[in-house]
Amino acid sequence: MKHTGRQNALYAQSGGVSAVINASACGVIETAMRRSRHIGKVYVGRDGIIGALTEDLIDVGRESAATIRALKHTPGGAFGSARFKLKGLEQNRAEYERLIEVFRAHDIGYFFYNGGNDSMDTALKVSQIGESLGYPVTCVGVPKTVDNDLPHTDCCPGFGSAAKYVAVSTREAALDVTSMARTSTKVFVFEVMGRHAGWIAAAGGLAGRKPGDAPHIILFPEIPFEPERFLERAQQCVEEYGYCVVVVSEGAAYSDGRFLAEAGTRDAFGHAQLGGAAPVIANMIRERLGYKYHWAVADYLQRAARHIASKVDVEQAYAVGKAAVELAVKGTNAVMPTIVRKRAKPYQWTIGHVPLSEVANQEKKVPREFITADGFGITAACRRYLEPLIAGEAYPPYRDGLPDYVRIKGAPVRRKLKTTFKV
Amino acid sequence: MKHTGRQNALYAQSGGVSAVINASACGVIETAMRRSRHIGKVYVGRDGIIGALTEDLIDVGRESAATIRALKHTPGGAFGSARFKLKGLEQNRAEYERLIEVFRAHDIGYFFYNGGNDSMDTALKVSQIGESLGYPVTCVGVPKTVDNDLPHTDCCPGFGSAAKYVAVSTREAALDVTSMARTSTKVFVFEVMGRHAGWIAAAGGLAGRKPGDAPHIILFPEIPFEPERFLERAQQCVEEYGYCVVVVSEGAAYSDGRFLAEAGTRDAFGHAQLGGAAPVIANMIRERLGYKYHWAVADYLQRAARHIASKVDVEQAYAVGKAAVELAVKGTNAVMPTIVRKRAKPYQWTIGHVPLSEVANQEKKVPREFITADGFGITAACRRYLEPLIAGEAYPPYRDGLPDYVRIKGAPVRRKLKTTFKV
Repeated sequence: MKHTGRQNALYAQSGGVSAVINASACGVIETAMRRSRHIGKVYVGRDGIIGALTEDLIDVGRESAATIRALKHTPGGAFGSARFKLKGLEQNRAEYERLIEVFRAHDIGYFFYNGGNDSMDTALKVSQIGESLGYPVTCVGVPKTVDNDLPHTDCCPGFGSAAKYVAVSTREAALDVTSMARTSTKVFVFEVMGRHAGWIAAAGGLAGRKPGDAPHIILFPEIPFEPERFLERAQQCVEEYGYCVVVVSEGAAYSDGRFLAEAGTRDAFGHAQLGGAAPVIANMIRERLGYKYHWAVADYLQRAARHIASKVDVEQAYAVGKAAVELAVKGTNAVMPTIVRKRAKPYQWTIGHVPLSEVANQEKKVPREFITADGFGITAACRRYLEPLIAGEAYPPYRDGLPDYVRIKGAPVRRKLKTTFKV
Repeated sequence: MKHTGRQNALYAQSGGVSAVINASACGVIETAMRRSRHIGKVYVGRDGIIGALTEDLIDVGRESAATIRALKHTPGGAFGSARFKLKGLEQNRAEYERLIEVFRAHDIGYFFYNGGNDSMDTALKVSQIGESLGYPVTCVGVPKTVDNDLPHTDCCPGFGSAAKYVAVSTREAALDVTSMARTSTKVFVFEVMGRHAGWIAAAGGLAGRKPGDAPHIILFPEIPFEPERFLERAQQCVEEYGYCVVVVSEGAAYSDGRFLAEAGTRDAFGHAQLGGAAPVIANMIRERLGYKYHWAVADYLQRAARHIASKVDVEQAYAVGKAAVELAVKGTNAVMPTIVRKRAKPYQWTIGHVPLSEVANQEKKVPREFITADGFGITAACRRYLEPLIAGEAYPPYRDGLPDYVRIKGAPVRRKLKTTFKV
């Protein structure tokens, strides 16, 4: 392939999607298309890195500008994402070599990988192997995770919207419960995401303002679950306030590391029932305190809820996508744009960047000083951190009462390789 | 008590609350306050009928006009609601007599009862007993139920907003699932409310437009659940579309009437685990088809979701409250305002009314012709019925990233009776 002085770009989505990952896609694509001195065609891997490995690329040039723009208000992964972690170089050199083979065939000089910790590790490795195979690729990570657990960035695009959804839902459900607690449900349990870090659960804490406001108890993965202390507090709340709202992280676990969600419930066949910390907690309430309870599990609803996305989150998601391209065309390799908090109130932020090597495979948990001494709530410092991230509404357009989300055409790029690759 | 030519009004909320029951309260209160030729003070029962029985009344005159107005955008039951069904006149004459005693003490001539089937029955009985005790009260029901199962009205305030929430959430979660189905979750199960009628589940069907769109399967209470047929269809969907989204009503049941939600799962102590049709369905998928699955249970979130309320629903909720007062001051007794559909497209509606005796204790299920022949989807007729009910957005105001919902002061009316009443 003749080298024209400019090279093509490949963007791929990775891991769990979010309400705003497509806003990052929009930022990457719109910016890349404007940088025509450096970037030729803009391709996207269908189903993320799998599309890159199998040479199944989408030609974004065949989508209308309106479609690209509408990505900014469309949740999920419009191009497909994948839970597919490339193994280490030693275990599976073939995958990396295949990637470079595809990149070479399609003259791809820029690789933008939109994901979490694992994906930053992959982007770093691609950059290294390209170099060693004599086909250097500028690899820039685009941060994304509702879990908010990437280090070196003030927050992660996707988190603010999940946080807003959880805070709003907690406030709304609490109003429901309190209005009927006298004769009906006294304990409401709301399960939210966050397998290892309690950021989303912490966001539930924003629903309350004054002492006594719901949620009364937050169960963090960071704080070992002690049933007796929990039950005592729940009873106290019902006696004092008439009701008790519990936000429980799916990652809440006993001190021995067992998740609540896998602790006990069995189906009719005696098989352990996976998933559902909320029903476990609710059953505990019933068994021990006898209160009427209800429980909800938000699951994907919370990370797909573009209808109640945080405006700040949408803007940051777009900005990191845009910054990734700007860094790449300046030749900055193996980095990830970050969000830098300049000021908390009024909230001011800017974009920085860190080497991928400092982000890869790391995890940022909720610090102890963000959790109240009793382990059941958030501190003022945590509130100061979280509040700006859910600020502002960025409503999608509606048609016939429903959000008018876009779907891409997804026209494939003609294959150039004779070889196939089985993932 | 001296009769001044005008009498006071009592409003009470009853049963499960909704995103818009306070909009009906707003309609009743604002209208009653403007009808000062007929209506003196406006009182509200704290915790619904319990407040009336225990002479625990709230003086709405002590709330600001801004607070009353803000009820229109505040979910839950701002004055407290109750699950408290008055028994039949024969079994518990004392309760009815106590109500009339309280009404007489506070010169209450108008009673507005905001609830579902049971509450319409209670309102009717109060009207009858008042008459027979020589203290006639004009009783008007104000329809409310997210279940949409009241007869003689095109729809029930509260339903449109729950329906919109479920349709929006289904569409959003489906985008999430489809984007990752290749390497991750293939079956997503979303449980929604509706113990006896599948209206809310049907609303999930609005999320899709074209064949193949999610939701692929809706499980209605009206259609007996057949595991084999369901599993076959789920497998078919995954094979054809790559994924399968299931909306299941909490009221879905086997042909012998057993609810799915109580069919099988047991906790560590061997006790039947109540609630959760979604995990039962999900386990079935895992056991028999082996697909990766996720499930969500919206529970109170769906009926409290004022942030995504239907504009039509908010307007209708206000309108039935307003109409109730207008009917009452005209002397129309023992009726319930209804919503009358004049035209489907463009949607036009007006307010009518029916005798309470025709509404009390009746239930409107989803008619068979609204469900596709295979029992798994909604027909075009159902879509035509449902679509207008979720039309328009009526966003609440926000402060610091969260909906700015109002709380009432709830100043009590001074008690006049020496007797107390134990509920």
